[in-house]
Amino acid sequence: MSNKDDSNLFSGYHGLALNILQKFDAHVGDRVKIETDSKALEGILIPRAELTTTHDHVVIKLKNGYNLGVHVSKIKSISVIERGRMLRPELPEIPVSYREDAPEVSIVSTGGTIASRVDYQSGAVYPALDARDLYNVVPELGDYAKLKTRFLFNIFSENITPSHWTKLAAEIAKDIQDGVDGIVVTHGTDTMGYSSAALSFALQNLPVPVVFVGSQRSSDRPSSDAAMNLLSAVITAANAPFAHVVVVMHGTEDDKFCYCHPGTKVRKNHTSKRDAFRTINDYPIAKVENGRIIMLKKDFVPRDKKRELVLKPKFDNRVAFVKAYPGIPPEIIDLFVDKKYHGIVLEGTGLGHAPEYLNDALKRAIEEGIPVVMTSQCIWGRINMYVYRTGRQLLNLGVIPGEDMLPETAYVKLMWVLAQTRDMKEIRSMMLTNFAGEITPQTRSKEFLG
Amino acid sequence: MSNKDDSNLFSGYHGLALNILQKFDAHVGDRVKIETDSKALEGILIPRAELTTTHDHVVIKLKNGYNLGVHVSKIKSISVIERGRMLRPELPEIPVSYREDAPEVSIVSTGGTIASRVDYQSGAVYPALDARDLYNVVPELGDYAKLKTRFLFNIFSENITPSHWTKLAAEIAKDIQDGVDGIVVTHGTDTMGYSSAALSFALQNLPVPVVFVGSQRSSDRPSSDAAMNLLSAVITAANAPFAHVVVVMHGTEDDKFCYCHPGTKVRKNHTSKRDAFRTINDYPIAKVENGRIIMLKKDFVPRDKKRELVLKPKFDNRVAFVKAYPGIPPEIIDLFVDKKYHGIVLEGTGLGHAPEYLNDALKRAIEEGIPVVMTSQCIWGRINMYVYRTGRQLLNLGVIPGEDMLPETAYVKLMWVLAQTRDMKEIRSMMLTNFAGEITPQTRSKEFLG
Repeated sequence: MSNKDDSNLFSGYHGLALNILQKFDAHVGDRVKIETDSKALEGILIPRAELTTTHDHVVIKLKNGYNLGVHVSKIKSISVIERGRMLRPELPEIPVSYREDAPEVSIVSTGGTIASRVDYQSGAVYPALDARDLYNVVPELGDYAKLKTRFLFNIFSENITPSHWTKLAAEIAKDIQDGVDGIVVTHGTDTMGYSSAALSFALQNLPVPVVFVGSQRSSDRPSSDAAMNLLSAVITAANAPFAHVVVVMHGTEDDKFCYCHPGTKVRKNHTSKRDAFRTINDYPIAKVENGRIIMLKKDFVPRDKKRELVLKPKFDNRVAFVKAYPGIPPEIIDLFVDKKYHGIVLEGTGLGHAPEYLNDALKRAIEEGIPVVMTSQCIWGRINMYVYRTGRQLLNLGVIPGEDMLPETAYVKLMWVLAQTRDMKEIRSMMLTNFAGEITPQTRSKEFLG
Repeated sequence: MSNKDDSNLFSGYHGLALNILQKFDAHVGDRVKIETDSKALEGILIPRAELTTTHDHVVIKLKNGYNLGVHVSKIKSISVIERGRMLRPELPEIPVSYREDAPEVSIVSTGGTIASRVDYQSGAVYPALDARDLYNVVPELGDYAKLKTRFLFNIFSENITPSHWTKLAAEIAKDIQDGVDGIVVTHGTDTMGYSSAALSFALQNLPVPVVFVGSQRSSDRPSSDAAMNLLSAVITAANAPFAHVVVVMHGTEDDKFCYCHPGTKVRKNHTSKRDAFRTINDYPIAKVENGRIIMLKKDFVPRDKKRELVLKPKFDNRVAFVKAYPGIPPEIIDLFVDKKYHGIVLEGTGLGHAPEYLNDALKRAIEEGIPVVMTSQCIWGRINMYVYRTGRQLLNLGVIPGEDMLPETAYVKLMWVLAQTRDMKEIRSMMLTNFAGEITPQTRSKEFLG
């Protein structure tokens, strides 16, 4: 990919913002001082890496590492303190060293901060696109794998939708057909748990591991977890003895090890901590420490390149995911019934309850052929609707208990099931069947809070 | 309360179920054998303690402690193996011993399993209504407090609505006016965190502690946490040096101690474990161990009976609480705007994000004077919408960042704020003001996962 063209000088800027940069001859990567009516701001002019909806801000990276957008209307002048290097300069042609007999790993990028690298001179962050970039950022990768890389999407993970899961599944299926030894998917952390669950269902009978990885701190911050997570993910994809969809992220707040979390049992539990991801109602399959994979589970599907992948990549996006809470209006349920949705997943309270005044609306939903699945907002533990009368009433209405599935996983699973059948009996049976580790036979006490 | 009348023989049974019990002369409390077409079931015939919507089941308590409802249509015969004692027999007139100088504690019951006691002969569970009952069940209570008790509601906590919070606040205000030294509220565990948050806002300038307590295992099971939780709650209400709304529940899986969790920062995180309740993004105020209160926090409002309560018991129930997830349809937001709701709390992803395709719907909401508050489904951590472009876009639309508030608490708080003002500026200012410990100035790393 060539990056020598001049458009890089104002990379990503349009409209008023582009005009003002051109006027003051300030380029992306320059250290600039922006004067406004009230103050002077100094920082590195950074590119607008993502598709922006407005074009009236100039963005600089401050010394403290944070980005700040300044509205064009407030800018009196911009002066260039120091010219920056061009962004995405040609990297020096250093030889990439990797073992010729190393396993082949495909890295599919969907976006998120892990797929970026910092230009240390300009302070700007931009995507690390190709294998050489990655080997430059994390040279140890060459010890473990021959990489092939591609950008599938470049979006924030909050913008990932079920149709992205379908495309991603198809891409991974291609890689598997090509005979790679493992796949790494770089992904924003916000919805990584939803996506890892989706791919766990879409990729049945998996021959090699599929490893989701992200980072909680972008690679331009000293506390970044990006390099270690990426290295651990590549090691897992290259060498793990299992063939599961997993999420590889920091296991602790320090840089000691990463966990391999089962794709259907993992959740982001903290907005910013590096060890935010935890296995819920189960335990991690393995950990990666000092370049080695230490298995924590004995019951896993071994990798076997001769196993034939069964691709079921479709998701029915007419499923509603509704949290039940004190005062929830029944008209939320009515809306989805009126609009002919195909399924509803409730995130109920406790052992699987919802206010009784919702029962009529839920009854109507089920009578109209809309399956309703119950999960718990407690997150940990298992649905048991036999204990209290209110739970038994819901069972009598036909509500399907979600066992110990994460609410998010149950939502993804119902979309996957509905893409295969609309028969209420089959839906129930499939929701109660363990396809990808989403239901464990027994919930153990010690798994509480990871 | 007299319980000698004959209606107790068939307590709570009506319709077909009552008919069949009368036919076979089986009374509540009897050990019975029920014959169906396929099997014979043995257990104690138990009363239908709650208002039931159907009258066609006979319920027995099996040997394993679980209750089983048998549909009348399946019953061929019922035979009485052993007559039970009458339920709620006159308790023996044992003297209740309590210190005359003990603090006065008011117990307000709203329902839930903690407000029950088991008849060990019949195995049935029924409400422990009055102080004498409680002293009989937990005789140690007399060492700590003079109790006055009353039933305010007798409902499962999943059926608690904002109007119940208002009534409960008014009842507690009465107790405070009467000069009690502390109040205990027994409450089902499902929505206890919502209610404790609601009362934290409704009871401003509190002079004495208000202690929510529940139990995760009903008092007829050997592993019940009811007695220890209740005792710890009464000790807290009677003796704690602070005047906060707290939740008192088991601190560990064994019976070692209970925690006093701040009412706005507590959440049920497990469907069944006794230590399911955890303080989120903060730490417990105190623990209660061996009858003593050990303070864990130095910054608390001291109890002071001269402090004048400010009662703000109203909640605006036109607030929607919406989880954001991959594929969420914008029409959910549209529904609430079209129906002229007064506020929306989003449970977003990560640092406070939602799919960008929701932006138009959210923009319209805010333009129509509906405040939108952002929280995170991560549960732990703090909203920071400045880090990524998608967050900044939401801030630009006018979305109010929920800081480190629990989503549930932010929902309750917005209802409380909207009952006081509909002015968008004031709403924003109040949502960002700490009224009852719901916003901490700094989130500490070690508070992750309690």
